[in-house]
Amino acid sequence: MVLLARALHRISRASASSSRYRWLFSSPQNQPPQLLQSTHFYSPVDSSQKVLGCRVIYSWVSNALTNVGEQIQSQSNPAVEEKLDPFSLVADELSVVANRLRSMVVAEVPKLASAAEYFFKIGAEGKRFRPTVLLLMATAIDAPTLRPPPHTAVNTSSMELRTRQQSVAEITEMIHVASLLHDDVLDDADRRRGIGSLNFLMGNKLAVLAGDFLLSRACVALASLKNTEVVSLMARAVEHLVTGETMQMTTKSEQRCSMDYYMQKTYYKTASLISNSCKAIALLTGHTAEVAMLAYDYGKNLGLAFQLIDDVLDFTGTSSSLGKGSLSDIRHGIITAPILFAIEEFPELRSIVARGFDNPANVDLALEYLGRSQGIQRTRELATMHANLASAAIGSLPESDDENVLKSRRALVELTQRVITRTK
Amino acid sequence: MVLLARALHRISRASASSSRYRWLFSSPQNQPPQLLQSTHFYSPVDSSQKVLGCRVIYSWVSNALTNVGEQIQSQSNPAVEEKLDPFSLVADELSVVANRLRSMVVAEVPKLASAAEYFFKIGAEGKRFRPTVLLLMATAIDAPTLRPPPHTAVNTSSMELRTRQQSVAEITEMIHVASLLHDDVLDDADRRRGIGSLNFLMGNKLAVLAGDFLLSRACVALASLKNTEVVSLMARAVEHLVTGETMQMTTKSEQRCSMDYYMQKTYYKTASLISNSCKAIALLTGHTAEVAMLAYDYGKNLGLAFQLIDDVLDFTGTSSSLGKGSLSDIRHGIITAPILFAIEEFPELRSIVARGFDNPANVDLALEYLGRSQGIQRTRELATMHANLASAAIGSLPESDDENVLKSRRALVELTQRVITRTK
Repeated sequence: MVLLARALHRISRASASSSRYRWLFSSPQNQPPQLLQSTHFYSPVDSSQKVLGCRVIYSWVSNALTNVGEQIQSQSNPAVEEKLDPFSLVADELSVVANRLRSMVVAEVPKLASAAEYFFKIGAEGKRFRPTVLLLMATAIDAPTLRPPPHTAVNTSSMELRTRQQSVAEITEMIHVASLLHDDVLDDADRRRGIGSLNFLMGNKLAVLAGDFLLSRACVALASLKNTEVVSLMARAVEHLVTGETMQMTTKSEQRCSMDYYMQKTYYKTASLISNSCKAIALLTGHTAEVAMLAYDYGKNLGLAFQLIDDVLDFTGTSSSLGKGSLSDIRHGIITAPILFAIEEFPELRSIVARGFDNPANVDLALEYLGRSQGIQRTRELATMHANLASAAIGSLPESDDENVLKSRRALVELTQRVITRTK
Repeated sequence: MVLLARALHRISRASASSSRYRWLFSSPQNQPPQLLQSTHFYSPVDSSQKVLGCRVIYSWVSNALTNVGEQIQSQSNPAVEEKLDPFSLVADELSVVANRLRSMVVAEVPKLASAAEYFFKIGAEGKRFRPTVLLLMATAIDAPTLRPPPHTAVNTSSMELRTRQQSVAEITEMIHVASLLHDDVLDDADRRRGIGSLNFLMGNKLAVLAGDFLLSRACVALASLKNTEVVSLMARAVEHLVTGETMQMTTKSEQRCSMDYYMQKTYYKTASLISNSCKAIALLTGHTAEVAMLAYDYGKNLGLAFQLIDDVLDFTGTSSSLGKGSLSDIRHGIITAPILFAIEEFPELRSIVARGFDNPANVDLALEYLGRSQGIQRTRELATMHANLASAAIGSLPESDDENVLKSRRALVELTQRVITRTK
């Protein structure tokens, strides 16, 4: 199983080998598996061929990966069959992180403090998905041999390392919340819809300043880790968040139907922060570039899977019926994977997309095409493939017989399954 | 003169000894000069006594400092009497920095690129005041003995150091422009005034994203300097910009007439970035904490002097007559030093301030009080004192007989004089 996971991991690595996101597989049907490692820039010009090529390929990968998650779960430690709750496993530590976060965002000026604390208050912290992943990753790649030997105050050193890894979780959450605050700064069109975000409650400018404040606190915390590679990684993640958001805001009509554009944007907006912070955790531990890259790959594929399912749920909601979701993306003119796959089957849908979705009748028409297509199913399959690639990255980590390490790895694999089976 | 400059520098240091800005001097009239070193939190409760105390004290300091700038100019190198143009001295290097800045803000997404470049285009770069100060500071504290000896590729090392110092200038300018972009994001009230800033041209959200992009690029550049103390300094400066802006936005009525609040806000909004980046230049050079602090003090006092004169010009414009400026601050309800000094003489002005300035008649009334008071003159005197303290910091630097070093020091001193004599 470890060998299979490693082979699959090599495949997934190919997709991240450029700073520009390369879409996954472009080799035509029936080619031997080794060609799957080749990559290709996905281009709007020959989109149907590429996406079909991809569909066939990822079906193969998907079959090969079937239940790879459960295999890792049971093979890592056959004695433990029960499913782990990833969130419970780090619940106590999450509280520590949450408390530290609240103390880190205290500002001198009361209004700034209340704006910055907005999303860190008890009850408003969200699922704490990112800190959970990062704390689990910290344990999953724990390797005491990398740290000073036992006779040199190993406890202090071990605690220090853990505190630094917790710092990465805190920094990641601060960057995430800062991006939420800035994303919610409404342009005129949005303001008319009257969403009750922080900018709505306190004004655009305070929302901007609160976001800046969080970014500067994150930067101060980053500097205190005294690892400039980590500073650089996290700064790039901020840049990616900005780039992804801008790509979404400024999509041109020819980019709207491009799967490459969509996947790039999705990586920047959703997957970059978690993947780079997973990598940061590994770098702080003193791991090799290979382990750091496995951590990165886990985060990247988990993030992509998460967003693909998000895109499905926007159409289906908690039920599996089409049109029961909020339809928020399509109504805002944001074209996601389900529609992009549907276009492959029904090229005439492209002209409907080009007309925009200000007219609700156009939304209904697009939904009709989507219903007749395999768009939703193919998006779920693509999400499953990324979830399985994330699991495969965990399966490729250096072997360990430490019970805590194995438990955290199983929890990370369990997370990949939760991400693709969630209904909200 | 050097001894005088050092004594004065010690006085000025006291005001920066706390992370909270301590307002300058609070010792009562006729106390011996050594008590000038004591500091005191300026409190709104006993404002008149403190400001009067301060006025007497800074008159003494001001007299002692009379023409300290010219003294440094002529004593440093009696052979060179002509005034230096600080901007010409670094003109070539400013072009290098400007070109590098333009190449650093290139973004993948065209809209983001054009937004981020907005203030870096040729013709839209402004005075390049901060880069000028920083490049001059880099030469002014140049100390070849701190660098590796000549046989170890001194040229490379010297060039590398200079490139790193130029980086600080570029980072500072990116942070400055990011803060301009974010400060200009309008709340509803401002939008009605229809200012033609970037957010007006491209929408709030793109202005926010462009600012974030610049901050993330600044952070990446900072990380590449591989000095986490410098990262931390600059991140604090970003936090101060945010804090100062929020203080201005959320001033409560009891804070509006507080000189302490005003000076804190001014330090955060205007002086922190330049002072911390001056310090960063010194740290990169490998200087002692003392020299780094002198560089910091120069920046801090220059920044404060600059803002105090800005506040005067808002009332006087290019002429010296009251009411000829844009009156932008007072019309926005922002109370600056001239009015604060006028309140000391005419306490009844406080109730006019409390009524706000939505009514133009109230603005006229305040101007009448200001005209009868010493407010403008006292603000100019305070600015002069800070300019002289900045010069004194330069005068306290370790002695040097390097012509370039001395020339840059004279240029820095010349800048302090330009700041207080400017009419626009």
